[in-house]
Amino acid sequence: MYTEVTGGVTAARGFKAAGVRCGIKQDQTKKDLAIVFSEVPSIAAATFTTSAAAAPPVHVNKDILKNSAIVRGIVVNSGNANSCTGERGKEDARTMIRTATELLGIPADQFFASSTGIIGEYLPMDKIVPGIAEAVSQLSKDNHASAAEAIMTTDTVPKENAITFTLDDTEVSIGGMAKGSGMIAPNMATMLSYVTTDADITQPLLQKALRSAVDKSFNCISVDGDTSTNDMVGIFANGRAGNKKIVSEQQPQYARFADALEYLLRSLARKIVIDGEGATKLIEIQVHGAEDEESARKACKAIGNSNLFKTAVHGEDPNWGRIVVALGYSGAAFDPGKLDIYIGDVPVYQVNYKIDFNFDDARRALAGDTVTVTVNLHKGNARAAFWTCDLTQEYIVINAHYHT
Amino acid sequence: MYTEVTGGVTAARGFKAAGVRCGIKQDQTKKDLAIVFSEVPSIAAATFTTSAAAAPPVHVNKDILKNSAIVRGIVVNSGNANSCTGERGKEDARTMIRTATELLGIPADQFFASSTGIIGEYLPMDKIVPGIAEAVSQLSKDNHASAAEAIMTTDTVPKENAITFTLDDTEVSIGGMAKGSGMIAPNMATMLSYVTTDADITQPLLQKALRSAVDKSFNCISVDGDTSTNDMVGIFANGRAGNKKIVSEQQPQYARFADALEYLLRSLARKIVIDGEGATKLIEIQVHGAEDEESARKACKAIGNSNLFKTAVHGEDPNWGRIVVALGYSGAAFDPGKLDIYIGDVPVYQVNYKIDFNFDDARRALAGDTVTVTVNLHKGNARAAFWTCDLTQEYIVINAHYHT
Repeated sequence: MYTEVTGGVTAARGFKAAGVRCGIKQDQTKKDLAIVFSEVPSIAAATFTTSAAAAPPVHVNKDILKNSAIVRGIVVNSGNANSCTGERGKEDARTMIRTATELLGIPADQFFASSTGIIGEYLPMDKIVPGIAEAVSQLSKDNHASAAEAIMTTDTVPKENAITFTLDDTEVSIGGMAKGSGMIAPNMATMLSYVTTDADITQPLLQKALRSAVDKSFNCISVDGDTSTNDMVGIFANGRAGNKKIVSEQQPQYARFADALEYLLRSLARKIVIDGEGATKLIEIQVHGAEDEESARKACKAIGNSNLFKTAVHGEDPNWGRIVVALGYSGAAFDPGKLDIYIGDVPVYQVNYKIDFNFDDARRALAGDTVTVTVNLHKGNARAAFWTCDLTQEYIVINAHYHT
Repeated sequence: MYTEVTGGVTAARGFKAAGVRCGIKQDQTKKDLAIVFSEVPSIAAATFTTSAAAAPPVHVNKDILKNSAIVRGIVVNSGNANSCTGERGKEDARTMIRTATELLGIPADQFFASSTGIIGEYLPMDKIVPGIAEAVSQLSKDNHASAAEAIMTTDTVPKENAITFTLDDTEVSIGGMAKGSGMIAPNMATMLSYVTTDADITQPLLQKALRSAVDKSFNCISVDGDTSTNDMVGIFANGRAGNKKIVSEQQPQYARFADALEYLLRSLARKIVIDGEGATKLIEIQVHGAEDEESARKACKAIGNSNLFKTAVHGEDPNWGRIVVALGYSGAAFDPGKLDIYIGDVPVYQVNYKIDFNFDDARRALAGDTVTVTVNLHKGNARAAFWTCDLTQEYIVINAHYHT
């Protein structure tokens, strides 16, 4: 379907990246500053946290996106979220952007800034400013992996992926990197993902495709249900592929691009869940037969955010009762007598309260690294999917005994 | 303010109770069937689970409440929730009621039935019917504690309380019992509470006072955020105190009664939270300065249901960042620069991003059995309170390794 390729955030033509250590993180071996840059003018689209306590860089990026038709990349630091830092935080985010754009020789309103890490401390600008200079000097096609590494906080592995596909006869690439699932760590907020593409597409359609892909990927995962103050997904498109420009939602090329973007973001989202704190299993929840998509999503989320369900999966217990309970309070319409629940391929609860399932088969379906739960609500034709991880003692250990 | 007295669910005049073992639970030492009964005609009010998968007894009780002006008590079994059992489950609930009312010599539409325990199994009626006969034979003023014991599932202690107060010059009592906070155990659903009073009050006002008190007590607690299929709070009022009947919301006696009921339900709700699975600390969350009560409640719930916050309290980490994050996605209006957060009496975050708090003082405020978090949103005058417990490794152990 799509060809996965190496190259991450620089797989698309015309993009460079770098990741360096500037000294924000105490661990001397860890990178903490990344830049992604399009050599030629690019447009951008983005989705931001809905938190009422959105961090200063989020506000600054929103202003940039509103005021400039061209946005050519982003500078990101990890180790400090620049959150709950007020006006000074905004000024620091603007200084990051100004420093980068001056060195890159582009206008100061054509760049984003992001931060992730501890909340409530001012950025160490004396380290960040020279760090930006070093990162700019190292920008290259080859440094995508360093960039993915430099945006990590408590992530245990860097997360990147890229795909190629054709629009008409033109080869197009989309690549990206991501870090830690929302609130995977104490005061280490933030799900961040930056994506680049050489597709030629209008800004409103890029925004539309991103919104839709985010809703079906990053908005369908959860490690512990929290939403951070710094969450952001940004995409940059520079048109270097030379495809016939996508200008209408009605074009089949738009659908193809949007679908490819969704595929890429889902692959990054899964990497985040698998790397969830203390997680030992990836759980995929499929709800179908819902009245509408909203209901399907509500049902998915209620199951995926239930501590009781997530601990049952950890214990490899085919506890369908906890799924019924979560559905019950999800807000999705269904009749408890007209419901099918499968763990893997094993029916554990079926219409007319049929529950004499094969316990051993169900246990086996829970034994692997990936567990699938499928629910048919028998109310309509809408569906949704959701990814989460099991809840383990290790999660408690990590989060209870990390101190500010 | 109110005098706490012994007597639990039979503290009010004219009520009797009993708790017996009929053999539903495998453990031979555990009681599993309770009856509460008013010797004279009483009215009832109740609130029920909002789950779309509400269990059969819930539907049966709703019908009783709709059709009969008089409801004289309840028969409850533990060990089996009679949930996801369809028409047969309803028939079994009606049989429980019919058996009890025939033995008590009252009409069959004047009684409730409740069940709590495992989901998805039919009730063992061959054990329950004789159990009801035995419980009826043991009904007495003295057996309130046995009744409180017989409704337990994974609760480690029975929960009961009673208060007396005066309306005009008449002494009035309200007493009750409760079990396990919603979904404290795998397939062991259900928060149940039954309350009795000898106050004389109209049914609509009794329902109104109960609704309001439940919203500020049982609806303001959480162990893990789940809502069960069987949740129910019921109150029976038999007028035996002989107070001047409460007939209008405008009477000061109504306000006094409603406040007393809220006090009693809050005391029972706290007992549930303290007994939460694996809990080591009771957490009280106070949000004030909210735009409206709805916002205050949303803010409370977001903090109280955050795994990250609850693990931080367990680790005695004054991690105010997790509180800001939870507020951020709560839906409550606030400005992150105009916010005060206290742990105990220690300010940890104050207006204008002031965060240079005394770490040792904050640690000490987290060290006890009870932790209080107070938030001022600086947006208005509304307030709410919420009670929860810390999230511990023990919770995971209990819930992952209990098998269906």
